[in-house]
Amino acid sequence: MKAAFKLWIDQDGKTFGDGPYELLTNVEKTGSLHKACAQMGMSYSKAWKLIRNMEQKLGFFVLDREVGGRFGGGSKITPRAKELMTCYARFRDEAKKAIERIYRKQFLSFEKPGLSRPTRRS
Amino acid sequence: MKAAFKLWIDQDGKTFGDGPYELLTNVEKTGSLHKACAQMGMSYSKAWKLIRNMEQKLGFFVLDREVGGRFGGGSKITPRAKELMTCYARFRDEAKKAIERIYRKQFLSFEKPGLSRPTRRS
Repeated sequence: MKAAFKLWIDQDGKTFGDGPYELLTNVEKTGSLHKACAQMGMSYSKAWKLIRNMEQKLGFFVLDREVGGRFGGGSKITPRAKELMTCYARFRDEAKKAIERIYRKQFLSFEKPGLSRPTRRS
Repeated sequence: MKAAFKLWIDQDGKTFGDGPYELLTNVEKTGSLHKACAQMGMSYSKAWKLIRNMEQKLGFFVLDREVGGRFGGGSKITPRAKELMTCYARFRDEAKKAIERIYRKQFLSFEKPGLSRPTRRS
């Protein structure tokens, strides 16, 4: 037995979680929303919908689009999005540790065999 | 903005979370799985499926069925299920507090207006 969880940021609904974090991380690495989508097996239209929804709820842009240019344009994340990603990663990592610690504390007696025998239906 | 989360206990897959906790709490209150389902608007067959799945994964029974008897039988939770519910409730409540505390800590600078201005797409 172990603790399992899902965390996200809510702003009038689901706004930012592991999926968007991974998408923006891949945009940062590849410099392109197209390449990021390809890496994740996500459709471009789904990614844009996700980003528009996120931007609307957050009240700021997360992507800067570079139209044209030497390599045909691309996308990069905004400084504000980078801040969000940094805060979210710290939040998630620290919360994970806390959840696992609290689980071990609260379920220690439950999982110790011998202290409390499983009850079978009579 | 706020932190949102979903917690559960995993034992080869989703095993116990808020839904099962509420169902068992209602069985405890009403002394009947039928009444518990009615209160939650859950079908009896769905509840049984949930309970069988849970018992199989946990390796112990969570319900004692009282067949017949003066009031036509009913269901009550096993002592081992009661232990699980107690551990889970403590785990969930403490984890909720920790998640909210960690969120406030990590997002304090992000949410402070003036310290960091939202970036608009250029």
